[in-house]
Amino acid sequence: MTGRERFLAACRCRTVDRPPIWLMRQAGRALPEYRALRQRYSFLDLVRTPELAAEVTLQPVRRFGFDAAILFSDILVANEGLGQGYRFRDEGGIAMDFAVKSARDLERLEVARVRERLAYLPAAVRCVREGLGDQTALLGFAGAPWTLANFALEGGSAEVWERAKRLWFEEPALYEALLERLTRAVTEVLRMQIEAGVDAVQVFDSLAGELPAGTYAEAGLPWLQEVVRSVAGRVPVIVFARGYHGDWSRLIGPGVSVVGVDWQVELPEVAARLPAAVGVQGNLDPFLLTLGPAVVRSEAGRLLGVMGGRPGWIFNLGHGVPPAARLDSMEALVQTVREFAGTVSADRLSS
Amino acid sequence: MTGRERFLAACRCRTVDRPPIWLMRQAGRALPEYRALRQRYSFLDLVRTPELAAEVTLQPVRRFGFDAAILFSDILVANEGLGQGYRFRDEGGIAMDFAVKSARDLERLEVARVRERLAYLPAAVRCVREGLGDQTALLGFAGAPWTLANFALEGGSAEVWERAKRLWFEEPALYEALLERLTRAVTEVLRMQIEAGVDAVQVFDSLAGELPAGTYAEAGLPWLQEVVRSVAGRVPVIVFARGYHGDWSRLIGPGVSVVGVDWQVELPEVAARLPAAVGVQGNLDPFLLTLGPAVVRSEAGRLLGVMGGRPGWIFNLGHGVPPAARLDSMEALVQTVREFAGTVSADRLSS
Repeated sequence: MTGRERFLAACRCRTVDRPPIWLMRQAGRALPEYRALRQRYSFLDLVRTPELAAEVTLQPVRRFGFDAAILFSDILVANEGLGQGYRFRDEGGIAMDFAVKSARDLERLEVARVRERLAYLPAAVRCVREGLGDQTALLGFAGAPWTLANFALEGGSAEVWERAKRLWFEEPALYEALLERLTRAVTEVLRMQIEAGVDAVQVFDSLAGELPAGTYAEAGLPWLQEVVRSVAGRVPVIVFARGYHGDWSRLIGPGVSVVGVDWQVELPEVAARLPAAVGVQGNLDPFLLTLGPAVVRSEAGRLLGVMGGRPGWIFNLGHGVPPAARLDSMEALVQTVREFAGTVSADRLSS
Repeated sequence: MTGRERFLAACRCRTVDRPPIWLMRQAGRALPEYRALRQRYSFLDLVRTPELAAEVTLQPVRRFGFDAAILFSDILVANEGLGQGYRFRDEGGIAMDFAVKSARDLERLEVARVRERLAYLPAAVRCVREGLGDQTALLGFAGAPWTLANFALEGGSAEVWERAKRLWFEEPALYEALLERLTRAVTEVLRMQIEAGVDAVQVFDSLAGELPAGTYAEAGLPWLQEVVRSVAGRVPVIVFARGYHGDWSRLIGPGVSVVGVDWQVELPEVAARLPAAVGVQGNLDPFLLTLGPAVVRSEAGRLLGVMGGRPGWIFNLGHGVPPAARLDSMEALVQTVREFAGTVSADRLSS
């Protein structure tokens, strides 16, 4: 079974020889070969130059042999496609070109120009596909509208995310109009990636936990689900609503193949609340990668012990690889999963 | 029914005329009378001067008529009692006198001197009790050992809390020795408050969410439970493990009367997973208090609609009152709860 076959089988809850593994933010600062590239190029150069984005995407696959690669990009490309560019502040964090503060600012977000502005995106996908071969799955991704609305309204990253939340309660019409545009942009981003050849996509609602679960279900989730519906049936879709710890079955809508689970909650408990025909992804604590290989082996082993036999489980962290992750610990993690000797059969689904 | 009777009945899941209400951090920066006092006194002056601590404790009760007051103090008094003082950094955040980095630093934490160092604490309780009368309940509180260990090890507040987590995995013996001392200090703090006349206590594990739920159950919860056991039977005990979203029934140990629930999760869902004989407290989103009274009334009304009839429910926020809370919205909240017209009967527990 190739990594690609394994990953795609797991997305569909079919039998696999062992759980597939990839890690959120597997490309990036933890790798010396990435840091070397960053000496010469800015983050945005890497994202916007197809050959460089492809190189960064491939780095962790070459080093660790993950079952899936994820396109090196940023959730904020959707905002950029609409005409709201982003850059990194010298003092840390992200600044958008402007903050959306009124209906007039909204008019500056042009859905019609998303494809033109993001032409580098499908080019990068094709470039990765070429270097990756057909043994490894390729994931595309996008941010979910709720999360992107927070950046759009705050004008960048914020210490306290409150403008989107406030708008939802106080100016529902403006809120809806903004989320509507973002939803269309996100849909375009995913379609471009799918047309260019990704095998699956993940939608990141990284700020889902900024809302109470019940409020998220009303203010954030419907837009995520609209995005998923608009690409459903083409490729498997993973949804990852970080910090959402409410009723898990609510995350499943038409077109959702896999539910991503963050590190704060217990994966077996969440998996038990989801139908067996839905995949789950996660959720080792990323912090463990900053500790030594022995702890990683033992904690990953515990997770494999309880989850390893569940069809449709994709091994991952419960959030991105931290920049301080140790290479020996990342290696130990991949090895532990690769050596998993349990049985993952989908038979029990049909019985 | 007085507020005190109502609050204590709810702690024991008995019949009440309406759910009792108090708010975490109800005393503090949201109140102009508190800000006026802070012009003249530092935060630490207020905490350490019994008459001033009492005045600050009483301010929100006078203004809003809450059913319970909570002693104005700080979770870090336990560290202070051990000899690890704290102060506020000019640039924000908290600095401890020193960081615990070794077994030798541990020797500086003297359990035997906690009572002597914190003599102002029971004095403040007696002072509040005098001003409060017998119509309103008085809550004492302490931080849980896991949370206090984080402050002890980081040497203050941190952007990323990692030393305690790291110690648990890498140096379990030192971790245990530290938690052991903190547990004894916390127990002393609560006993002093109880002996001085508080009606109930709340133990705050404010950093519970820094660990995965499964890890918290091993690294944090046992110490919290030891604290609770050591004061059990004297007064009702509320435990609030903020950010813990794992198996809720695990939070219930000997002596736990009420489980506090943070704003991220849905209270009815959590309550449904707890035995009917255990109280629940929470969990309105504190952010709502920064919006207008109409939103607060409507959201509090929704919560009352689903939870109002459950015996043993204490209305509260899911975290502290934010400094930007509006007074009219706080007033609207209290009024909405006071006007609740449902039935809260414990009959269904016995039937």
